[in-house]
Amino acid sequence: MIATGIVVEYNPFHNGHLFHLNEAKRLTNANVIIAVMSGHFLQRGEPAIVDKWTRTRMALAGGADLVIELPYAFSTAHAPKFAKGSVQILDALQCKYICFGSEEGSIAPFTNSLDTIDTNKELYEKTIMSSVQEGISYPNALRIAYEEISHNTDEPLADLSEPNNILGFHYMQSAREIRSDILPVTIARKGTHFHDEALPENSIASATGIRKELFATDTEHVQTFMPPASFNLLKQQPHQSWNHLYPFLRYTILREGPEQLALIADITEGIEFSFWRAAKENSTFQQFMQAVKSKRYTWTRIQRMLVHILTGYRKTTRAQICSPSYLRLLGISENGRSYLRSVKKELPLPLVSRAGSHKDPSLLMDIKSTDIYMCGIQGEPGLDFKTPPILL
Amino acid sequence: MIATGIVVEYNPFHNGHLFHLNEAKRLTNANVIIAVMSGHFLQRGEPAIVDKWTRTRMALAGGADLVIELPYAFSTAHAPKFAKGSVQILDALQCKYICFGSEEGSIAPFTNSLDTIDTNKELYEKTIMSSVQEGISYPNALRIAYEEISHNTDEPLADLSEPNNILGFHYMQSAREIRSDILPVTIARKGTHFHDEALPENSIASATGIRKELFATDTEHVQTFMPPASFNLLKQQPHQSWNHLYPFLRYTILREGPEQLALIADITEGIEFSFWRAAKENSTFQQFMQAVKSKRYTWTRIQRMLVHILTGYRKTTRAQICSPSYLRLLGISENGRSYLRSVKKELPLPLVSRAGSHKDPSLLMDIKSTDIYMCGIQGEPGLDFKTPPILL
Repeated sequence: MIATGIVVEYNPFHNGHLFHLNEAKRLTNANVIIAVMSGHFLQRGEPAIVDKWTRTRMALAGGADLVIELPYAFSTAHAPKFAKGSVQILDALQCKYICFGSEEGSIAPFTNSLDTIDTNKELYEKTIMSSVQEGISYPNALRIAYEEISHNTDEPLADLSEPNNILGFHYMQSAREIRSDILPVTIARKGTHFHDEALPENSIASATGIRKELFATDTEHVQTFMPPASFNLLKQQPHQSWNHLYPFLRYTILREGPEQLALIADITEGIEFSFWRAAKENSTFQQFMQAVKSKRYTWTRIQRMLVHILTGYRKTTRAQICSPSYLRLLGISENGRSYLRSVKKELPLPLVSRAGSHKDPSLLMDIKSTDIYMCGIQGEPGLDFKTPPILL
Repeated sequence: MIATGIVVEYNPFHNGHLFHLNEAKRLTNANVIIAVMSGHFLQRGEPAIVDKWTRTRMALAGGADLVIELPYAFSTAHAPKFAKGSVQILDALQCKYICFGSEEGSIAPFTNSLDTIDTNKELYEKTIMSSVQEGISYPNALRIAYEEISHNTDEPLADLSEPNNILGFHYMQSAREIRSDILPVTIARKGTHFHDEALPENSIASATGIRKELFATDTEHVQTFMPPASFNLLKQQPHQSWNHLYPFLRYTILREGPEQLALIADITEGIEFSFWRAAKENSTFQQFMQAVKSKRYTWTRIQRMLVHILTGYRKTTRAQICSPSYLRLLGISENGRSYLRSVKKELPLPLVSRAGSHKDPSLLMDIKSTDIYMCGIQGEPGLDFKTPPILL
């Protein structure tokens, strides 16, 4: 059986995701689609709009066969760590392919980028380091270093100013780093070749666009952009956002004070003082963000710090989590079950169907982040212990 | 000028408090009444029903001349520490008398109790210690030891099964301990000699009774039991309770986990695990308390632990705070200003009118506890910096 892996957040699952999933299947002749999906907190430093089990249902309804949780430690990390954790999970599950969206829709520029970096490694790393030390944000430091080495090749390089390309680049870089045999495949995003005759006109919108629409008007408006199953699931669940979690974030910043905040992952260079002052003065999340934003950090990076404060994710905990240490099964189709039976004996990591009694710091963070996510929407805690994998 | 000190919570200020205040003035011929008042969290481990500035206004309207905050570290401590902090403040303010309510209304039994304990010190302390080690609650251990030494005197002893007598006893014990010249005076509580012709029939109810009535029905019902000024102030303010703060308490227990909870003041003997489990399972404060109550701890002691969790009051912080280190002026009358002018130069502690920039761990806790109190009622943080003393 051919298994193809995809890395997703499905926040929420929309027509663009459905297209990507079907294309991944078609292009790789896959029998099984394995989705590594972020849990309750996402790479941009935001809570997911609906809980991970609802998003798992969306994924299964959309054609995924296995939904595996990307643990908190990776789902809320910067691109290189996010990508590495994802690829390690797909590699552990013996995927033949990893399929990601990109602007160009071809693998060659990515391969050339990686090769060019490899042959100019010293220059590349030195340039990144000196930019970061100058206070330039990581994505910009990457861009500058990349620009620098681009003069040393005649072949086209991947455009790393595009967020989707950045993730694709890191997936491929991670695969090289861990010496995985996984093969990269890429699909052009909407706006380039991202068009499917089977979809009606204007049926694709980004997840960001959908969420904006959801919060600004009402749920019905986004129906056009989502598969019916996904839309129905979205309608039935409470919608989470930073607005709901801000009272807890604010309270915890006031409670902890700068000294304790400094122990939280990603908090550096005294930004804890800025957070503390802003929490005292601002009663909405938007106002808070306006008060703390700076040229030094991207909005995303600040939001990731805030997620870590909210969940109490400490530097000491982060230091304990290097690689995914389990495969947390969130959902599975009939097809997925056959596949799992065929590879079960060879899995290098334990398969976790439901959180039980254990001391894995990464799994404990997943459980805690679920409990804290639920605080904002009056959900019950302990769901990771109670919820079995969703079966299709 | 004769200054008489009283120790109060005014939660809220009612006719019984008014009677006590007037009697204190009358019995001691006082020119000035100095009230040491708990801030936002009280000795029973509860948030005050209205903020400390509103309660200060009530106190001034009721005839107090100076309202000084009993810092968090003392206002939320067990009876001996609560009493000692209070007496140290009144002593620092050069009160001639301390006047407290008691069941009997006479000082002799208290003096005899202290003398009998002094002459039987070894037996007394040994008995307390062995009871506490057997898991008996502190008030009960005190009672047993007290019973034990009562055979060694013929004079009547104070009845320490009564909460009011316990505090009175500790005020007098503290005064001895710090070698204060302050003289104790006691007034019998309602039900014994606590009756004043000037008050209409059935006009006195306990603060607990008033709060119950407030939460069960509406504000108008308690009008009979409160001076009009106090009642009007109570009506205008949001009413705080554990119910409003429970979402934050629950969130923070889930976020901290047992390991971090164990660092909080008063948390011992693994009760952090019981709290953690109960937070996962219970969505109201009442349910939570039912789940964690035990024979080992009084309800009050558990609530005090919960206040410390809510405010992040750590064992390491508590260890830094031995005695009151400042006199925080919450409110003052014209009369109080004259008195303050007359003693200002001799005050052994700095007078703090408004919290400024400083590093006193006790004052930082007061400021933080205000901010956290405000989280439950959508109040603004930082009020300790912004609010000047209330002037009458």
